[in-house]
Amino acid sequence: MKRAVVLLSGGIDSTTAMAVAKAEGFDLYALSFRYGQRHAVELEAAKTVAALLGVKEHLVMDIRLDRIGGSALTSEIVVPKDRNEHEIGRGIPATYVPARNTIFLSVALAWAEVLQAEDIFIGVNILDYSGYPDCRTEYIDAFERMANLATRAGVEGRARIEIHTPLIAMTKAEIIKKGLDLGVDYSITHSCYDPSYGGLACGRCDSCLLRIKGFRDAGVQDPTRYVSGSL
Amino acid sequence: MKRAVVLLSGGIDSTTAMAVAKAEGFDLYALSFRYGQRHAVELEAAKTVAALLGVKEHLVMDIRLDRIGGSALTSEIVVPKDRNEHEIGRGIPATYVPARNTIFLSVALAWAEVLQAEDIFIGVNILDYSGYPDCRTEYIDAFERMANLATRAGVEGRARIEIHTPLIAMTKAEIIKKGLDLGVDYSITHSCYDPSYGGLACGRCDSCLLRIKGFRDAGVQDPTRYVSGSL
Repeated sequence: MKRAVVLLSGGIDSTTAMAVAKAEGFDLYALSFRYGQRHAVELEAAKTVAALLGVKEHLVMDIRLDRIGGSALTSEIVVPKDRNEHEIGRGIPATYVPARNTIFLSVALAWAEVLQAEDIFIGVNILDYSGYPDCRTEYIDAFERMANLATRAGVEGRARIEIHTPLIAMTKAEIIKKGLDLGVDYSITHSCYDPSYGGLACGRCDSCLLRIKGFRDAGVQDPTRYVSGSL
Repeated sequence: MKRAVVLLSGGIDSTTAMAVAKAEGFDLYALSFRYGQRHAVELEAAKTVAALLGVKEHLVMDIRLDRIGGSALTSEIVVPKDRNEHEIGRGIPATYVPARNTIFLSVALAWAEVLQAEDIFIGVNILDYSGYPDCRTEYIDAFERMANLATRAGVEGRARIEIHTPLIAMTKAEIIKKGLDLGVDYSITHSCYDPSYGGLACGRCDSCLLRIKGFRDAGVQDPTRYVSGSL
């Protein structure tokens, strides 16, 4: 079986990307990060997802991006709430974490090289998304090109790293429908950026709003437990 | 003053690259990594170098690349010794750390973005080097291109990240002469991959051999303290 490294945050997108990798027949190596995110609770979801999808290994790396800051997710900058559909995805929001996907993909690249895997999956998408620069196709293509020059494999011509973005052109509703087709149980995933409400989602941050819209557009019951009154 | 993030291991190359950045008038932000390297003693050298060169800040990030392995520097793989000049630089040696420069540059990119710096310095070079794929010009160019797509700056057209490689086409001897011209005290730098000899360098790993050759070719006294009998 071919091996794939899959970036797994525990949210809808990365969970669905992992389900796609599994359906394509890869042995799964899940990679998550404890990076100083305020919603580190997502790692519990990632652990459950990894176990349910039968990964060969789940590596949770620590890197304190909160020491660098610059994001509402890793510093005291306030997480925006109650933005409407026209605001989300226009401009780069406060929750953007500088170079996060580049750092995560770089570590995935290192692990892929050691595993002799040629395939890395990431659940980025550009329709119902937050406007992060490191989710776009041209960025992913540039990363892939760089990755094939960075590594032993690329130099020796033994292998070629491919960055898979199976969700890139899908709406959140399409992603959810795809995942349901593949048997994903979204009740175990976590999207909310705000951990203030215990196990409940705030229902008001961009991530919750995109999730809510996704289930609504898909015509599917949202299994998420939101804090009372937020919907 | 413009700010630059400088990758600093504490060896000859990164120290010289930092001296070049300083001479070019940048405010210096030094970035080092405790990545599970067997020669973590290099971080003491990095600290001394950063202080002597008057950096604004020295950030030492922790990332446990030894959990990924794949290198003689981060696992039980044996560090090669006593290789001759014809062997060093041909093929990729056991001391290659998968995707290390990509990970380090990615974190530098994140920090640069937060600092609103457009300049990142790295002391890679391709003449007297160990044969690592992520030291080559084509790799650096590809990283720079990717970096300008990855970030807020690249999307908004506010700034342009430049990866500076002032040493790329220099021999080790030329690097040492350049550094001496800039007032670098190489006695405070550390190159050896093998920490078995306390404060002394082994004199036999690739890194020591390149260092020894560099001082010899430069016609300069090597200030390094090698373990007795290794020279």
